[in-house]
Amino acid sequence: MATTSDSSFITMAHGNGGRLMRELIEHVFAPALGNPDLDTNADAVRLPDLSGDGEWLITTDGFTVDPLEFPGGNIGSLAIHGTVNDLAVSGATPCYVTLNAFIEEGLALSILERLVRGIGEASRESGVRIVAGDTKVVGRGQGGGLYLATTGVGLRPHGLQLGLDRIRAGDRILVSGPVGDHGTAVLLAREQFGLSGDLQSDATSVLPIAQALIKGPGLRFMRDPTRGGIATVAHEIARTTGHTVRLQAARIPVRPPVRAVCDMLGYDPCYLACEGRIAAVVSPESATAALASLRSLGHRHAAIIGEIAAGRPGVVLETALGGERILEELEDDPLPRIC
Amino acid sequence: MATTSDSSFITMAHGNGGRLMRELIEHVFAPALGNPDLDTNADAVRLPDLSGDGEWLITTDGFTVDPLEFPGGNIGSLAIHGTVNDLAVSGATPCYVTLNAFIEEGLALSILERLVRGIGEASRESGVRIVAGDTKVVGRGQGGGLYLATTGVGLRPHGLQLGLDRIRAGDRILVSGPVGDHGTAVLLAREQFGLSGDLQSDATSVLPIAQALIKGPGLRFMRDPTRGGIATVAHEIARTTGHTVRLQAARIPVRPPVRAVCDMLGYDPCYLACEGRIAAVVSPESATAALASLRSLGHRHAAIIGEIAAGRPGVVLETALGGERILEELEDDPLPRIC
Repeated sequence: MATTSDSSFITMAHGNGGRLMRELIEHVFAPALGNPDLDTNADAVRLPDLSGDGEWLITTDGFTVDPLEFPGGNIGSLAIHGTVNDLAVSGATPCYVTLNAFIEEGLALSILERLVRGIGEASRESGVRIVAGDTKVVGRGQGGGLYLATTGVGLRPHGLQLGLDRIRAGDRILVSGPVGDHGTAVLLAREQFGLSGDLQSDATSVLPIAQALIKGPGLRFMRDPTRGGIATVAHEIARTTGHTVRLQAARIPVRPPVRAVCDMLGYDPCYLACEGRIAAVVSPESATAALASLRSLGHRHAAIIGEIAAGRPGVVLETALGGERILEELEDDPLPRIC
Repeated sequence: MATTSDSSFITMAHGNGGRLMRELIEHVFAPALGNPDLDTNADAVRLPDLSGDGEWLITTDGFTVDPLEFPGGNIGSLAIHGTVNDLAVSGATPCYVTLNAFIEEGLALSILERLVRGIGEASRESGVRIVAGDTKVVGRGQGGGLYLATTGVGLRPHGLQLGLDRIRAGDRILVSGPVGDHGTAVLLAREQFGLSGDLQSDATSVLPIAQALIKGPGLRFMRDPTRGGIATVAHEIARTTGHTVRLQAARIPVRPPVRAVCDMLGYDPCYLACEGRIAAVVSPESATAALASLRSLGHRHAAIIGEIAAGRPGVVLETALGGERILEELEDDPLPRIC
């Protein structure tokens, strides 16, 4: 990396506003982000086109995943997918993203380049443009290699009504694919159990899934079950609606290796993060059609996993043997820095 | 802080998506940010009003200042002012802000509350609304107490043309007040030299200054000289225009205590961060009027500090005794984590 420094590691001087910072932005960030309009000199830039017919939505998210690279992605691709997905489940088409990087002194430039490439590739795949960015460098032992913060802006069609307030007793809950893949993949990458096998993160854009569900009738609400998993989404629904969310354990899709790792280590996949799934609530009469639309997109593990039952707020898991157990709201953090 | 936890310190569980995180957001962030419309449950929210007559600008910035609190502000107020200022110097009126917080395990909740209050107060003073936010918790020794990332959206009137590309040889450079206050105040707060005296950060919104300059004729370009100070702004001008930026040392306003600290510790105030000043380039015939408009706002130390001289790119400081010295582009970081 003779282009950015004599050294191949990030130094504090890469954050000082001077030559090394400018070169880092010009040689590492700008080319990989692949937006020829990205003005690396401007304090603020024009939001390119806000003339679209609809409502503009905004979302923001921070990313601290450890390790920075894991099977199926890295913190860069994760940040873009996470931002795209927050807009997608809100019914919007993601358009523009701003990017903040907090880089730790000592990070190898070769790793940073791979992570920034992940940002660029995921942006192109998802059809979003990075329109503004900022980098800061923090001292050794004051960061986790790289933290990212992104803000996304997207366009939602007029009249699309989605939200927790639209959920009614009797509605069904669907999930678009197996749960817990991301959490488990990161856990294994972190702990180096030698168990990775073919387990990888599900991190990807859920925009095609969201758009298929929006086209169908009866859609009430969508969420991407990241931190805290589908159990946390279920709790949010229960708390907001005042009803009981009843999940059927046997219908929740979990890949066998995820199940095996959870059994071995004592995790419940319902609490583990997904980064490429949607949990959706649909009206009872639309549930089968919604499931069929997901399957026709190739999501063969998509499933109707439960329903909203009138009653007091709470989340109940019906076990395969006909028993019931309460899924409590998360207290301790089972897996910190998962996203 | 019985409302958020039995403990009075941030734990990893404050970042897991579960109860403690929800309570932290509901009890600490939402009330202090003072926006009744802030939906703490939504994945993405509507950008309230994009119907204004003008162009929408976007900016993003990260904040890592150490210490978190310093005379004249804290990382929370700094983040808002920094974002407001990036929009203001671009000619826009700041409207909306998104906020990311990376909180380190072990941070006292009482400190976090003060910092978040700083965010809320600065937002109200500056007339911006926090429309979306996200919190992450990182482990002890993986953060600096609190890092913030903000994205700001603002409205610039149609037809306002500002930019480095508008600068011409002969133009004058103004600064709206004494330089180096923020850098010196943070340095002293960090090092605890017992020298603080009445030295405090200049961190504030520069929106009134920017708007006064915009109203006058001949304005080419504005920048808030943060990291790297006015020397770095001068280098950016020189690099982009291909001309020489000539600064006159005797005209650069520096408060006596800042000068004293710099002399003692070997810093050059031209490289130290301001967080409440504007460096502006105006046409030669408009410089006196621009200066008068700044002084009429009460900025009695505002000064014309130099000019753009046709010639090869570089920054020259003319000393009081008639000598000259080259102001080099920043190489090493004299003061890391200043903003």
